[in-house]
Amino acid sequence: MNNGTMHTIRAFDEDLDQLRVQVLEMGGLAEAAITASVDAMIHRDLEGALRVVENDRRIDAMELEVERLAVRLIALRAPMADDLRSVIAALKIAGVIERMGDYAKNIAKRVPVLDAAGPLEPISVLPAMGRAVSHLVKDALDAYANGDTESAVLVCQRDREIDDFYNSLFRTLLTYMMEQPHNITPSAHLLFVAKNLERIGDHATNVAEMVYYAATGEQMTERTRGNDTTANLGANMEKQA
Amino acid sequence: MNNGTMHTIRAFDEDLDQLRVQVLEMGGLAEAAITASVDAMIHRDLEGALRVVENDRRIDAMELEVERLAVRLIALRAPMADDLRSVIAALKIAGVIERMGDYAKNIAKRVPVLDAAGPLEPISVLPAMGRAVSHLVKDALDAYANGDTESAVLVCQRDREIDDFYNSLFRTLLTYMMEQPHNITPSAHLLFVAKNLERIGDHATNVAEMVYYAATGEQMTERTRGNDTTANLGANMEKQA
Repeated sequence: MNNGTMHTIRAFDEDLDQLRVQVLEMGGLAEAAITASVDAMIHRDLEGALRVVENDRRIDAMELEVERLAVRLIALRAPMADDLRSVIAALKIAGVIERMGDYAKNIAKRVPVLDAAGPLEPISVLPAMGRAVSHLVKDALDAYANGDTESAVLVCQRDREIDDFYNSLFRTLLTYMMEQPHNITPSAHLLFVAKNLERIGDHATNVAEMVYYAATGEQMTERTRGNDTTANLGANMEKQA
Repeated sequence: MNNGTMHTIRAFDEDLDQLRVQVLEMGGLAEAAITASVDAMIHRDLEGALRVVENDRRIDAMELEVERLAVRLIALRAPMADDLRSVIAALKIAGVIERMGDYAKNIAKRVPVLDAAGPLEPISVLPAMGRAVSHLVKDALDAYANGDTESAVLVCQRDREIDDFYNSLFRTLLTYMMEQPHNITPSAHLLFVAKNLERIGDHATNVAEMVYYAATGEQMTERTRGNDTTANLGANMEKQA
């Protein structure tokens, strides 16, 4: 492993760049899917929703491609400590992005049901939440692109805005259900849409945590993050709906 | 890499066994958390629920331990093709198990809210769904322990039972909300509990898919699985709530 280290390292860096580019391209698709799924929901755009569902296969396929690249890279270059950590981080981030795509797809799949249900008050809050989530995902991916730990920490802090959106939507939707029984079915679907957006935000923080870990070799602590523990530790499921 | 291959392989196998044992131990904790969270919900056991939430930190810590082991194994043994695929599978399965633990934790976190809400009809279906999900997770982990591709395929097929449970619960809970506005808040939480169980079932199929991939080097096709595509492709988010 130690012979010709310089050469190995240079070749490794090229491979790692290629891997990072793949992951970022995949992230771009997921980011677009999130925006498109919320737009499709707002505008009752059934075709747009269908495109989100179909495009998700590309995201899934890219995750497998990232995995193949990573495995080939490890087998070819046998990277050590930090390098290996970067490869593992790329693998894990690709897995998280695939999940984000699934959430966007799930939002898109509810568009027909919501379309049949007629207009709904709380939907007016969802575009803002959708935009905030897309931005958070974009910033998490930028932090990955630049190995920027400061931005990564900011992403984790900003996830709280998303949680506030979610909690307010949860309450609004329940009130809405109580006012009109015929609102119950569409509102139940919107509850899941809001939950999906909240989970995407949590996954953005997962990406940020991996960026931090890959760059520093340490887990992001609550101190680094400046959050109260229950708000983020263990990522997405700590929060009460 | 080709010098002393036999020795390398034997040492690698020992390391891989150690990795597998860690992943399975982690899986056992998640399985226990799923059962405990549903029990705590049924019996309004606040202390039991709190234990599930606290124990989830152990599951999170074990995922990091699995990652450290895997990274050390790769750096030390520089495994090739199939061996490397087994290590990557262990890493990914640990990630999925961590998520299962999060879902169990989220169920546990809703116990206080549900406790305050008084008895609820549909809860009577949840124990059965909880048992079915725990069994599916157990079978997925057994398939991993034994590298048993046939059982892995069965797990993916049986996930449909879980989806049936979920769809029936979804309808029951909505009817329940329509009957009594004061049922709306607890029922909304039960919707998420049911969704969490359904997602755990999906993650069990993810594990089964990884077992299949690690053993065969091929993705499990819809043909192998004998399902209709929309029911499982892209795992958990394809289904309509």
